[in-house]
Amino acid sequence: MLVQKYKDMLSGKSVIRQLSEFATARGQEIGYENVFDYSLGNPSVPVPREFTDKMIHLLATKETNYLHGYSPSPGITSVREAVAASLEQRFGIPYKKEHIFMASGAAGALAHAFRLVTEPKDVILTFAPFFPEYNPYVNLTGATLKVVPPDTDTFQINFEKFEKMLTKKVMAVLINTPNNPSGVVYSTETLQKLADILKKKQEEYGHDIYLISDEPYREIVFEGVDAPCVSKFYDNTISCYSFSKSLSLPGERIGYVAIHPNCSGAEYMVNMCVQISRGIGHNCPPSIIQLAVAQVLDKTADLRVYETNMNLIYNELIDLGFTCVKPGGTFYIFPKALEEDAKVFCEKALKYDLVLVPGDSFQAPGYFRMAYCIDTEKVKRSLVALRKFVETEYPDRNGK
Amino acid sequence: MLVQKYKDMLSGKSVIRQLSEFATARGQEIGYENVFDYSLGNPSVPVPREFTDKMIHLLATKETNYLHGYSPSPGITSVREAVAASLEQRFGIPYKKEHIFMASGAAGALAHAFRLVTEPKDVILTFAPFFPEYNPYVNLTGATLKVVPPDTDTFQINFEKFEKMLTKKVMAVLINTPNNPSGVVYSTETLQKLADILKKKQEEYGHDIYLISDEPYREIVFEGVDAPCVSKFYDNTISCYSFSKSLSLPGERIGYVAIHPNCSGAEYMVNMCVQISRGIGHNCPPSIIQLAVAQVLDKTADLRVYETNMNLIYNELIDLGFTCVKPGGTFYIFPKALEEDAKVFCEKALKYDLVLVPGDSFQAPGYFRMAYCIDTEKVKRSLVALRKFVETEYPDRNGK
Repeated sequence: MLVQKYKDMLSGKSVIRQLSEFATARGQEIGYENVFDYSLGNPSVPVPREFTDKMIHLLATKETNYLHGYSPSPGITSVREAVAASLEQRFGIPYKKEHIFMASGAAGALAHAFRLVTEPKDVILTFAPFFPEYNPYVNLTGATLKVVPPDTDTFQINFEKFEKMLTKKVMAVLINTPNNPSGVVYSTETLQKLADILKKKQEEYGHDIYLISDEPYREIVFEGVDAPCVSKFYDNTISCYSFSKSLSLPGERIGYVAIHPNCSGAEYMVNMCVQISRGIGHNCPPSIIQLAVAQVLDKTADLRVYETNMNLIYNELIDLGFTCVKPGGTFYIFPKALEEDAKVFCEKALKYDLVLVPGDSFQAPGYFRMAYCIDTEKVKRSLVALRKFVETEYPDRNGK
Repeated sequence: MLVQKYKDMLSGKSVIRQLSEFATARGQEIGYENVFDYSLGNPSVPVPREFTDKMIHLLATKETNYLHGYSPSPGITSVREAVAASLEQRFGIPYKKEHIFMASGAAGALAHAFRLVTEPKDVILTFAPFFPEYNPYVNLTGATLKVVPPDTDTFQINFEKFEKMLTKKVMAVLINTPNNPSGVVYSTETLQKLADILKKKQEEYGHDIYLISDEPYREIVFEGVDAPCVSKFYDNTISCYSFSKSLSLPGERIGYVAIHPNCSGAEYMVNMCVQISRGIGHNCPPSIIQLAVAQVLDKTADLRVYETNMNLIYNELIDLGFTCVKPGGTFYIFPKALEEDAKVFCEKALKYDLVLVPGDSFQAPGYFRMAYCIDTEKVKRSLVALRKFVETEYPDRNGK
């Protein structure tokens, strides 16, 4: 018999994927260059030349059994050493290879982090708006994801609601900064307050509360933005990193779990990740990709285009009368829709070939997401369509 | 709190890994070339030149976003089409891309297969001797692995014991042919009888019983051996394949699940695998490796060395008076030890720098495994040590 819980999931199609499929279909009618597809968070800038050069050099010069052989379960030792050294140098936290577990992208890293610290029926808290895949990621482990409603003025943390929801059953708190979908970066003040509350509640409840920090956008931070390192505030932090966005290689499934050296249980956690891998069929990220990434750890793709795009879009949105928190990083922006139901708003936008994602998917109804990882030239053309859309459909709004 | 079940696993160290670590340590004392390390099943022959050439060509000529971008969740469409076409052409089963789910090696493929067809507390049956990782692979899903004792005369299936253990709670039967550790290939007669029993029991119990076929050694079959395609015998077959051994790239984590087109529920299963992936953080195998492998689907590394090694070892073992089923494939051989306790036997062998693995790990006590994926020259030197070992320690055995 097929397992019903997975069969049942087949009917629930992701809105983002449906929109992306619409964009592809519409592109076949009118040319994809004329569809202003803001649906998917798929990096658009090229992989840095250094990465490709390192890959070719490895393939051309190294023995194939070295390049493509089994990686030790926690990752190739020299790669883990290089990651730890780079983190220590950048953030001043004394990571050693013993704290680094190489994983298949952020999804793989999170799968291990959740299983490290939650049993079935435990609760993980996260904050709206959030990446909708957190739901299956957590709930299919047997634990339960609960969502703290957003502070829509800032998209920082709604601490009042958070404190109420931080019950004894909460074993981990999951954050994502810079944030998908809001583009907001948690400030020093936010992270300090979060850490203070967690420390207080740990003592009160008599058990650890782990902070799982999902950081695929760590390197995409805009000029002048305060973007503190999450792990500096709270020892019980498990960072989940991916090179997908920083190096523009989401298909290669490479990232890591970094355990804070002072984390409670740090001495066991990487070896526990190895055990978890055995149960989920995970094993290691690809060997040659580990070897190549280790040689470009402090490089990134040319990420400046995302800030250029953000400024163009943000300024036009404000001009048009939208309410919008200015993103501090990522390639997302999360404005308030011009009518209450963002699904209706996004539906109307499709008539202008603007593909926007309603905030309902991110548990923040009334807002919508634009993923501006597209060419700047196309962004500029899209703004003409955006103006036409809002001037036609919302003539009475308050904007220029 | 750290999750106890994974923490508890830290104390149980794999015997194979301990032996491999011994071999490495001993190698540092006397030179690794003097340690006859038969512990690990790590492919020794080079990756075929074509694979490396294709990789370099892709990197040198294709856009990076194409090469390294997100793969669709079931795998890159053109790659799935190529795999299906290759399987249809080779085995005459009408696979289409809808039946192929690209996975991270055989471990990733099995993780999906188990979750497709078993709920917690369901039973999966397998046959001794077997790959010991099946224990955590199955048991950590919540299902239970039960093991049918071996037919030590042939290492084919012990059907008498099998029929007794095939109760109503068994939702899947897991086989591995060519087999690790015995090297035996299941014959046409064995597979036909297995299929007949499964069909009969499906009807009797009124539910599907799936055959999960773990096939990483499919391409390593020796001259003149009857090595039938498992899926031809039984429609409810889920094949789990890996390119690790055929192309000598175990570190790149690339394989697939192939659902028999007539399998009950075939129309849902690949999409269900996609849902399973979301829960285990799996996602796809690396994009560039998918693209490269698709171009060398019908190539293999030069696997002949394994047969050369097998013949050398087998003939010497027989000469020395061992009882041993002749392997039909893989790079393993599984002789009977010269005393009852194979752990004691293997312990004694270490004094001669022969690293052999006791069959207890494979639930076949009294036997031992040699993984002969090493240089032929070293195999030859090892036979001198083997002769010295048995002549010294077992002078009264019946051998030449």
